[in-house]
Amino acid sequence: MAKITLGRYMWERIHQVGVDTIFGVPGDFNLQFLDSIFEVEGLKWVGNQNELNAAYAADGYSRIKGVPGVFVTTHGVGELSALNGVAGGMSERVKMIHVVGQTTRAMQNNHMMIHHSIGNKPDHQQYNNASRGLRFAAAELWNIETAPAEIDRVIRECFIQSGPVYIFLPLDLSTEEVSVDLLQTPINIKANVDTTAQEAAVKAIKDALEFSKNPSILIDALAHRFNAVPETRELVSKLHVPFYSANMGKGLVDETDEMYVGVYNGEISAPGVAEAFKSSDLVVVLGYLPADTNSGGFSRELKKERTIEINPFDVVVKGQTFSNTHIKPLLASLISNLPSTPFHNLSLPKLPPPRNPIDIAAKHITQSWLWPRISQFLRPGDILIGETGTTVFGLCDIRFPRNICFQAQIYYGSIGYATAATLGAEIARVELESGKHALLNGSAGTNGIVSEGSSGRTILITGDGSMAMTIQEIGTMIKAGINPLIIVINNAGYTVERMIWGAQQPYNDIVPTTYSHLLPLFKHPRPEKSFHLAKTKVELDAVLEKGELKSPRDLQLVEIVVDKMDTAWRLGSQLAWRGEKSREYLTNEGFVDTYGGWGLDGGSNGTVKWS
Amino acid sequence: MAKITLGRYMWERIHQVGVDTIFGVPGDFNLQFLDSIFEVEGLKWVGNQNELNAAYAADGYSRIKGVPGVFVTTHGVGELSALNGVAGGMSERVKMIHVVGQTTRAMQNNHMMIHHSIGNKPDHQQYNNASRGLRFAAAELWNIETAPAEIDRVIRECFIQSGPVYIFLPLDLSTEEVSVDLLQTPINIKANVDTTAQEAAVKAIKDALEFSKNPSILIDALAHRFNAVPETRELVSKLHVPFYSANMGKGLVDETDEMYVGVYNGEISAPGVAEAFKSSDLVVVLGYLPADTNSGGFSRELKKERTIEINPFDVVVKGQTFSNTHIKPLLASLISNLPSTPFHNLSLPKLPPPRNPIDIAAKHITQSWLWPRISQFLRPGDILIGETGTTVFGLCDIRFPRNICFQAQIYYGSIGYATAATLGAEIARVELESGKHALLNGSAGTNGIVSEGSSGRTILITGDGSMAMTIQEIGTMIKAGINPLIIVINNAGYTVERMIWGAQQPYNDIVPTTYSHLLPLFKHPRPEKSFHLAKTKVELDAVLEKGELKSPRDLQLVEIVVDKMDTAWRLGSQLAWRGEKSREYLTNEGFVDTYGGWGLDGGSNGTVKWS
Repeated sequence: MAKITLGRYMWERIHQVGVDTIFGVPGDFNLQFLDSIFEVEGLKWVGNQNELNAAYAADGYSRIKGVPGVFVTTHGVGELSALNGVAGGMSERVKMIHVVGQTTRAMQNNHMMIHHSIGNKPDHQQYNNASRGLRFAAAELWNIETAPAEIDRVIRECFIQSGPVYIFLPLDLSTEEVSVDLLQTPINIKANVDTTAQEAAVKAIKDALEFSKNPSILIDALAHRFNAVPETRELVSKLHVPFYSANMGKGLVDETDEMYVGVYNGEISAPGVAEAFKSSDLVVVLGYLPADTNSGGFSRELKKERTIEINPFDVVVKGQTFSNTHIKPLLASLISNLPSTPFHNLSLPKLPPPRNPIDIAAKHITQSWLWPRISQFLRPGDILIGETGTTVFGLCDIRFPRNICFQAQIYYGSIGYATAATLGAEIARVELESGKHALLNGSAGTNGIVSEGSSGRTILITGDGSMAMTIQEIGTMIKAGINPLIIVINNAGYTVERMIWGAQQPYNDIVPTTYSHLLPLFKHPRPEKSFHLAKTKVELDAVLEKGELKSPRDLQLVEIVVDKMDTAWRLGSQLAWRGEKSREYLTNEGFVDTYGGWGLDGGSNGTVKWS
Repeated sequence: MAKITLGRYMWERIHQVGVDTIFGVPGDFNLQFLDSIFEVEGLKWVGNQNELNAAYAADGYSRIKGVPGVFVTTHGVGELSALNGVAGGMSERVKMIHVVGQTTRAMQNNHMMIHHSIGNKPDHQQYNNASRGLRFAAAELWNIETAPAEIDRVIRECFIQSGPVYIFLPLDLSTEEVSVDLLQTPINIKANVDTTAQEAAVKAIKDALEFSKNPSILIDALAHRFNAVPETRELVSKLHVPFYSANMGKGLVDETDEMYVGVYNGEISAPGVAEAFKSSDLVVVLGYLPADTNSGGFSRELKKERTIEINPFDVVVKGQTFSNTHIKPLLASLISNLPSTPFHNLSLPKLPPPRNPIDIAAKHITQSWLWPRISQFLRPGDILIGETGTTVFGLCDIRFPRNICFQAQIYYGSIGYATAATLGAEIARVELESGKHALLNGSAGTNGIVSEGSSGRTILITGDGSMAMTIQEIGTMIKAGINPLIIVINNAGYTVERMIWGAQQPYNDIVPTTYSHLLPLFKHPRPEKSFHLAKTKVELDAVLEKGELKSPRDLQLVEIVVDKMDTAWRLGSQLAWRGEKSREYLTNEGFVDTYGGWGLDGGSNGTVKWS
């Protein structure tokens, strides 16, 4: 009977479910089983500059490919450094496998004071405790008989729950052997469907839709996380009713579609959008994640009696809950049960014409000008990674071309995420483009945005404060020879924090940075041709027309200088929405809503007034 | 009755125990109480580029000043990013206060989906659970009546346990007020001494010493962590017997003293040292931390019947334990109980003459030449921060001038630590030099190495792989206007890992870096004059003679190019000590011990043979 090491088995299993790249940082307690990565045909290693960046990169990879992002760390020091990235996956439901190389079982049994431990009689499982609440499952491997099944179990859980799982692998166990035949049985990564529950839910949804007068659809992040983007698109197409995106669902559906209204973010939506949304008598909400930053500070209106929630694991139709469903198969069933001719023949709600910002004539780059300009720059097939801060608020305000994959950490909001996630996203994009997305057992992965032979770009837009957190990962991108386009908004610090508190306080300043030195620092092959600085609209227009940016041959870095007190209106409005005090603060500190008064009438709860 | 906010109260208390700088990263849930830092006279803020770096900087600050290193993060995203740095403080017993700005109590009570949370009904205390096993105490503040006492309690615990404590401060609570009078009662940061236990222990130690023939002393890290360096020095002076340092105790005592023998690291010690150590009939071990990396891979010999252990909280005299003591007051009592004329009149054990390395004639920079050259470069008053990797093994092999403070994370060994810790160390050094170390209630702090008016330097020596992890913190140093001297060993990757496994594997390669761009990236005022590259011995000699390095006016960066297969003999010998397989691996992969054969005869357990 042919045998392979447990380390090899783990990587083969991970590769079987569609993972082609492993991220991580080597350490004393994972080196031997890192070797096994190179034994798996088609699997490659991309080492990161630190472990938090590895977790972020894995997150970015997963969001694009629909399969787990996988990364390796070492006992304690590496494992804990990555923890915040794992928690981000937990919050935002991103599939992630964190493989931790642990000390040997003998070291553990004898409580040896091996480096990376704590105390005189260390419990080597101490660090395992730290991530207990921040993962959906863990394989705490200890003996060779049960280890393969444990690995299989957590890989399955990673898909089913769409979130982080751990594999704790003692170094000595990784070299023990298991039968190669175990690889023949595919891991079942699909949810077990309770067809009775599903049929009842589908019928209730269908009935409610049929009897509604002017239904609409609100699309959100969890549809993406549970790999139901293709079904979401089909549903939108088949229902042919007005549809909206939440901030976190933006880009999942075609924004050039005739029935797309806009981003519904509660009262903090573009003029007319909230009113149109509220005029609907039934809203189908797909995969909603109702965090403050995804609901206009909890100002969205979703009345029970006119809402159908299609959640990952249940459906609620006008208050009636159907448990034990799964969003992807449920949507598939719903689509096949809908008539080929839509129930409704609705026209798009009429929205007011676009507003003109008061700083329209400025020659320098303003946020009111920048985001629409970015919109023009995008093209189908692009992946757009937005960083927490003014960027995501700006990006949620523009209309995308069709087929843009927009990803940001809008709920978890850990700054620094976007830069390192871009590494994983671009690697995943290249893999999909070259056709590397076959799964052993079906297309549970891929979000349908990048397909073989497409030629999109991965575009990161981040702030200077955020990029500083994880800036060394740009070196990893250069070393890996990938070609993302990185746009950094240089506004001299944490503008989002300035708007909340301490507008002029030194704690919101960051380290001044001369970005032209960043690419040569990491030995970029053509640093001068690949760095672009823009301080004015004319300069940025010229930069965005360059061939290097249209089809990057190597990593491109664009620095955009923006005033530190300038902001996207959507961010100021959301803060103003908190109440009179916030509004006064913004005004007194000199922040200006380019559309006037943050759209609020100044009532203590904030009432939007778009006149 | 005059009132101050709780935020202000917290900072005043922290300042009272000798803390003059707060590190951290601003976030939505700490901004308001960051303002209070500026209300405390003499307290300043140094913002970091990310939270892990903040924790490391706080650690470095504490090690130099003997008071807690304090840093602030925000709920979840910041808090978790710093966790590995906190665990390092736990492992290495470094005083650290981690202040976490939490969401408001209303948000927590209502389980609101505020950004940075997890799930649909988030438990905002979720992240608090992650650090439970990695701290000695936590003030989980919730109401204003008990909050001041809770803050006082954990500040005291931080000193008593010498390790990390947390203050969890809900944002809204930070602005509630307490009486300013509470500041009048000093926090008692001294251990309560059980005089009966202490007297018994002191008598037993004294008796054992008096009746021994040739006692010796072994000095280790915990004497430093529990602020007992002055007492350690006095004890060494008063006993006047041969003394040794463990790796982690190196630099605490004067290595130019006539009774200093060398670093005792078990069988992995310089020729003659282990033999000399073993010839002693009684060893006083001060603050020992017997980790693998601090004991020659557990090869040290400390027989119960000839050992006196003076530990932080107990004393063991030839196997008899005296509990309930505290190292600092116990040592003070011991010293005062010793006769003014030493019990013994011993001479220093005779060691073999220094060995000549086989690569002595090389023109390029070899590790066998580098470390002794560094020794010549050091001068009294210098702080030396060494990174895990070949550096610490090299540094443990040289003799320091008197009064060098050497710090490294030799037990926890989280790479990247040293660079960010240097920020904190240099800030602490400058504070001590300018006389800022008065404590409200006595000199519990300061390690006695840096004193007012001294003019040492802070020198970091790190590897390229390690520095990449936290490289952005060099920007913080430049912004802060401090003048450390940073030496980076460029040996194209993780050489310490190559020696363990995968000598030629790509996972041990790192991102190639052109360090000349690092200083201008972060707007260093004189980047050309402050960057120095050396590839040969002649070049490094010339660099080390430069005035900029002797008295740095601003941050200096020295890149030293070393072959990726070159190493300190002490590292190779420690690995070879593991057994025949390790020795074969090193030989087969082409690593060379410049003193021949790693000092081992190749026995399966490794037996040192220095012939």
